[in-house]
Amino acid sequence: MKIILLSGGSGKRLWPLSNEARSKQFLKVLQDPEGNSESMIQRIYRQIRQSHPETEVVIAAGEAQRDSLRRQLHGQAEVVYEPARRHTYPAILLSAAYLLDVRQMSEDEVIAVLPVDPYVEQDYFERLRDMEQALMDSGADICLLGIRPTYPSEKYGYIKGQAVPGSAYFRVDAYTEKPDLETAQRLVGEEALWNGGVFVFRASFVRALIEKEVGVLSFTRVRERYQDLPYNSFDCEVTEKCASLVCVMYEGQWNDMGTWNTLTAKMEKPDGGFVIRGEDCVNTHVVNELAIPVVALGLKDTVVVASADGILVSDKHASSYMGQYVEQIDNRPMYEKRQWGEYRVLDFAQCRSGKENSLTKHLHVEAGRSLSYQLHHLRDEVWTIIDGKGLFLLDGKIREASRGDVLYIPKGHKHGMASREGVDFIEVQLGTDLVEEDIERFDWDWGDLRG
Amino acid sequence: MKIILLSGGSGKRLWPLSNEARSKQFLKVLQDPEGNSESMIQRIYRQIRQSHPETEVVIAAGEAQRDSLRRQLHGQAEVVYEPARRHTYPAILLSAAYLLDVRQMSEDEVIAVLPVDPYVEQDYFERLRDMEQALMDSGADICLLGIRPTYPSEKYGYIKGQAVPGSAYFRVDAYTEKPDLETAQRLVGEEALWNGGVFVFRASFVRALIEKEVGVLSFTRVRERYQDLPYNSFDCEVTEKCASLVCVMYEGQWNDMGTWNTLTAKMEKPDGGFVIRGEDCVNTHVVNELAIPVVALGLKDTVVVASADGILVSDKHASSYMGQYVEQIDNRPMYEKRQWGEYRVLDFAQCRSGKENSLTKHLHVEAGRSLSYQLHHLRDEVWTIIDGKGLFLLDGKIREASRGDVLYIPKGHKHGMASREGVDFIEVQLGTDLVEEDIERFDWDWGDLRG
Repeated sequence: MKIILLSGGSGKRLWPLSNEARSKQFLKVLQDPEGNSESMIQRIYRQIRQSHPETEVVIAAGEAQRDSLRRQLHGQAEVVYEPARRHTYPAILLSAAYLLDVRQMSEDEVIAVLPVDPYVEQDYFERLRDMEQALMDSGADICLLGIRPTYPSEKYGYIKGQAVPGSAYFRVDAYTEKPDLETAQRLVGEEALWNGGVFVFRASFVRALIEKEVGVLSFTRVRERYQDLPYNSFDCEVTEKCASLVCVMYEGQWNDMGTWNTLTAKMEKPDGGFVIRGEDCVNTHVVNELAIPVVALGLKDTVVVASADGILVSDKHASSYMGQYVEQIDNRPMYEKRQWGEYRVLDFAQCRSGKENSLTKHLHVEAGRSLSYQLHHLRDEVWTIIDGKGLFLLDGKIREASRGDVLYIPKGHKHGMASREGVDFIEVQLGTDLVEEDIERFDWDWGDLRG
Repeated sequence: MKIILLSGGSGKRLWPLSNEARSKQFLKVLQDPEGNSESMIQRIYRQIRQSHPETEVVIAAGEAQRDSLRRQLHGQAEVVYEPARRHTYPAILLSAAYLLDVRQMSEDEVIAVLPVDPYVEQDYFERLRDMEQALMDSGADICLLGIRPTYPSEKYGYIKGQAVPGSAYFRVDAYTEKPDLETAQRLVGEEALWNGGVFVFRASFVRALIEKEVGVLSFTRVRERYQDLPYNSFDCEVTEKCASLVCVMYEGQWNDMGTWNTLTAKMEKPDGGFVIRGEDCVNTHVVNELAIPVVALGLKDTVVVASADGILVSDKHASSYMGQYVEQIDNRPMYEKRQWGEYRVLDFAQCRSGKENSLTKHLHVEAGRSLSYQLHHLRDEVWTIIDGKGLFLLDGKIREASRGDVLYIPKGHKHGMASREGVDFIEVQLGTDLVEEDIERFDWDWGDLRG
């Protein structure tokens, strides 16, 4: 068995902590058995490894997750980066093509696909062996994992089936993806199960899908044609149409951590950051990433989340319906952790006349790290060093820069910064389109910055 | 009659919009009869002028209110600036000394003292004439304004008295300042009235108090000895001990706008700033002064206020008890409107080694205005012009500065900035104590910047 872990983007369901660059699975709001904080992806990867220490695991992720994955999984995991964010069907085809074409896995082996966001017990990962066995015994195309519903949700797929005497699985008679509320109520009454989003199938099954879409089993070809693959979920594109499904049930704890309502239920501490709360707050969580205080008084069943991107104040239940409201917000990311350190956007100002703009950031380059050697076509930059010192590279010439130095970088000039001890600076950008994408990167060998 | 309007600091009861520099009375959250937004002080000054167009009005205010008063009252009002923030007793003595000594008012005239923060109808100001008449007719030392209590509050003084047949006032038998809850309940049951904080007395009465405190009727002497005057309210220092009190009643609307609970009840619009609210919010006010969005969903009886100083999320009733929580917060002001424009603190960073710090601001100098000519002893500054242009003055030399220019100001060097068209710049401060107080101001004649 090989495992594909789908590290999808969370969109804005956990706004303002999730955005394009920072998905919910990287938020360190959980706790590992030793009491250290961990993220969803750290938790699930640890749990997979505990049950399947030798199994090859491939993570399907967006390019924007590269730095977060390296930081949080310390390069342990193999990652297949999607050329664009599409949906689960293209992501599964790409990762499977990687396993079959690049890693040369056997067509007779099975692939298990796991979502990144359920909060589950260890037994969940043991069920993958039962699913593999069920697939082999039944001769079915796909084995699903069934979860007992706790309420008539419109968000999930529903599985109905017939028990197979003497076995741990059942045959699926009917599969209904995201029904309306009335249908969901009926299905729950009929003891249908939720589809937990785990799929087990033979490699040969997905090979046929790949060949159907791009003509040949080639990882490169799937990458090249990625934008042309159906923008659809695996559930809708495959599961719903599949005539040969079996299902294994998982009876343990299962929580979808995709909303603040469900996520806060699993958070070990009610507050994070600079928070002052009155003793009269009940079932209230406050997460504050800003440097200014949040004062919370007399709140009940409320979640307050403040980040550089915005501030959410919501009744916990109402937070599940946040999507429609935050879709209107189209801000650039205001804070990002990167491979080299982190930055925070402090200010954005449009000039009163014309289309010129300015943007101010605080950047921190970690000890022993370097910003890529880069240039911008649409902006000048002014860097004022406020802490530490570094090596400043401009058009191939290196100079030392330390607190109090002001560095001027006209547009079109290559520049970089490296630091042995860590350096902070304020960057004022002056130009038209002040976007992260206005960057051209070059190679530069800084040598051993730890030396 | 002369009027003293006490423009006290609000402390932190309307945090995070009120701070040392910005008191609640300057928040433009009300609406004037023409539908324009107005602040408490604009409203009460307008109301005073409507009932008493010819009366001399003196405002007692702290130095930190100078810019706000000039902006909001357009230099119409006479202001006596207190040398330090003390309490109402010293403030009333200082203003009365100004009226008696500097303005040479007659000792037989009366002075009416008004608080700045009640939300009242026009009739309230008509009652001042009844109070003057009552003082004259009764021969009492002080006339108070009685308000019918709406609940047994521990915050107010309580007045009990005997009606005087055929007159509009009554004689006060007992005055109880800030009783405990049990006593307040009893007093409300006995039909005692709240003291509305308005005092009318003869100028000769307060002259005796001034002479008792500083030996002579001299405005200069009261200013000089200001720090030594009793740090006490007029209620506790004088009213409570006074044997000869009368009271006139005001029956109209009266709301103390000292808490978010009472202030939001008078706000014309539920939201201010970049706010996205769900339709399911009930009796909820959101005021957002930040550039990032606040999303409010499913809230009931809640007030959300976000400013550069912090974020308050509170049940409206619970917001009345905010004091104890925000007292712990000892931030510098993060945003101030000034005579010359405004600034916002973007970033504060402590150096990893030692006691060096940095602070980053966005400053906007308005068209036709200038920053004072100044120097700092404890910090260097780097200014990067991001919008507009101005005249930059350094050690007596003027140069033009415009977008993209970077100006370096070492500590100990005199500098200033003036602008005909308006100019914005990012200021990075580098030093030890980065406080507003590290400033020495000098005179400079910029000539006519409007020219």
